[in-house]
Order: sequence, then C-alpha cells, then structure tokens
Amino acid sequence: MNTIEYKPIGIIYTPFTKRAGMPIQPTGAKGIKGTIKIDSAYAEGLKDLDGFSHIILLYHFHLVKEYNLIAKPFMEDKMHGIFSFRGPKRPNPIGFSVVKLNRVKDNILHIENIDVLNETPLLDIKPFIPDVDCVNADKLGWLEGKSHKMGDEKSDDRFN
Amino acid sequence: MNTIEYKPIGIIYTPFTKRAGMPIQPTGAKGIKGTIKIDSAYAEGLKDLDGFSHIILLYHFHLVKEYNLIAKPFMEDKMHGIFSFRGPKRPNPIGFSVVKLNRVKDNILHIENIDVLNETPLLDIKPFIPDVDCVNADKLGWLEGKSHKMGDEKSDDRFN
Repeated sequence: MNTIEYKPIGIIYTPFTKRAGMPIQPTGAKGIKGTIKIDSAYAEGLKDLDGFSHIILLYHFHLVKEYNLIAKPFMEDKMHGIFSFRGPKRPNPIGFSVVKLNRVKDNILHIENIDVLNETPLLDIKPFIPDVDCVNADKLGWLEGKSHKMGDEKSDDRFN
Repeated sequence: MNTIEYKPIGIIYTPFTKRAGMPIQPTGAKGIKGTIKIDSAYAEGLKDLDGFSHIILLYHFHLVKEYNLIAKPFMEDKMHGIFSFRGPKRPNPIGFSVVKLNRVKDNILHIENIDVLNETPLLDIKPFIPDVDCVNADKLGWLEGKSHKMGDEKSDDRFN
C-alpha cells in the first residue's frame, strides 16, 4: 500500500527524558505538566481550543526504530499482539493520549497529565468529547481486572 | 520539521461511498457494520485483540487534498480552528473513531458503529480502555450543550 506522509505540527515538551521510569498512561501522570509549541504556520488552527478542558493528542513515537507484532506489555508476563496493547513499537508508531488543557497562549499550550517523552513530535490535536469518545466497553481482554492499575505503573526498559 | 512516513496496515470497508449524508461520529453510526482487512504481513499483531469489546481506529482521510485552519464544523455556523473540531481537512488528516469489535477471523475484523468512508486506509488499532481513555471533561467549548446531538447529525458536502 502507498506510503502516507505527515509533518509534525509541533513539539511536546515534558519532564521525561528517558524511556524507563515513565508513567505508562496519562492516568499515571496526574499533575505532570508539559507544554506544546505549535509551529506558527498552524497556530491559527488553535482558535477556540481553549474552551475545552481536555484534548486528544496524536503523536509520533520518535525513538522507535522497529516494530514487534508480538510482545509483553507492561504489567504482563504473557505475549500479546501489538494491536491489543498500547506499546510504542507498532507498525505505525502513533501514540494517543488524552490530557488536560490548562491554558493556550499564542502558539503555546500548557497541558497536564502528560505521559510522553520530552521533544515528542505532535501530529494532531482534537477536542475530547465524552458523549462521543467514552463508550461502555464491557470486555477488556487480557487487561480485565488490571486496567485500573495502569495509573500506578511505571515503564521499564522493555521498549527501548 | 522532518517528514514522517507511515504505511496503511489495512483497509476499512463500510457502506459509505459518498462524503455527504454520512454519520459525523460513531455515535451516529449505531448498528452500521463494516469490516477491516488487515494486511497479512501484520496479522500476527491481532493476537488477543478479540478479547476487547471496543477498539480505537486511527485512519487516514484519504480523499483530503488540503487543509483549512479555520472552518465551520458540522452543527455550527461559526468559524473555529481545525484543532477544536473533528473535521477531516486537517494538516495531518488522521481520523479517530472508537468502534465495537464483533469478531476477528484470521486477518478480518468485523466491526460495528463505523462512521468512515469505504476503503479508508487504516493506520493503527488500539484497545479501548475506559479507565484510561474516559476522562471527566467539564468544558466543551463551542460544543457545550450540542455534543449529545452529534449522533443525530449527518454530514453535508462542506468538506468535499
């Protein structure tokens, strides 16, 4: 299939400079603050974003050089398919996080609950809309009974 | 900033062959069924995905040729920045939908509540995890008091 080309719209700045010891999801990054610098070419597209309390970030796992179709997720000692967990070594290494938006000033976003590495390239921002985005998922596969603990876990070096 | 290259991992097949008259979100596509054919090179990565009732799809809005930083979203007659709504004409035209996963058979996924055009290239699949992905958003910007109606709306031709 044809290659698709994207360009980062900005860079995410966070306190996390190493892949080990990080929160594995935004639920584990409560209170962690970061900023996003949007390329000035796209700043006009931020109009009215400041009305939303939470935003979806899609970003590029920029340190990933390869993918593993089967691996052991954090919190787990069994192998699972990459599409059944959130690890970064994916065929298209796109990350997804819902974070709190505290403030927008010109082309700078001040965010909270951020769980990504410093200097991660940002691909897209969308408003988080609970009526659309929160579904009543009643089957959680291998994460059944574990997903509420994801906020307590830290990464190790398995995806370096 | 550097260009990022992705390759589709599969194709989404749906009943929607025209951009006008479509549901504007999965909440408006209740019961609409589709299939995803995953490229056999990536099929191994589907292991254990069938344990999840809902999945996140990230896909490429393949008919989009340009972006508009400011536009009028569906359900609205005011202009807003592209990052404050979900329209397809984005700098990086990546779409996001949470859909129901009914069945996985080899490299074919049977899905429901799908709101995308037929033959949309798929970039990634992630399990939907309510503990992580549902946040209590208390500010909805221009969508305040409107977002519960998104399921009743159909697209027009404004993003053709």
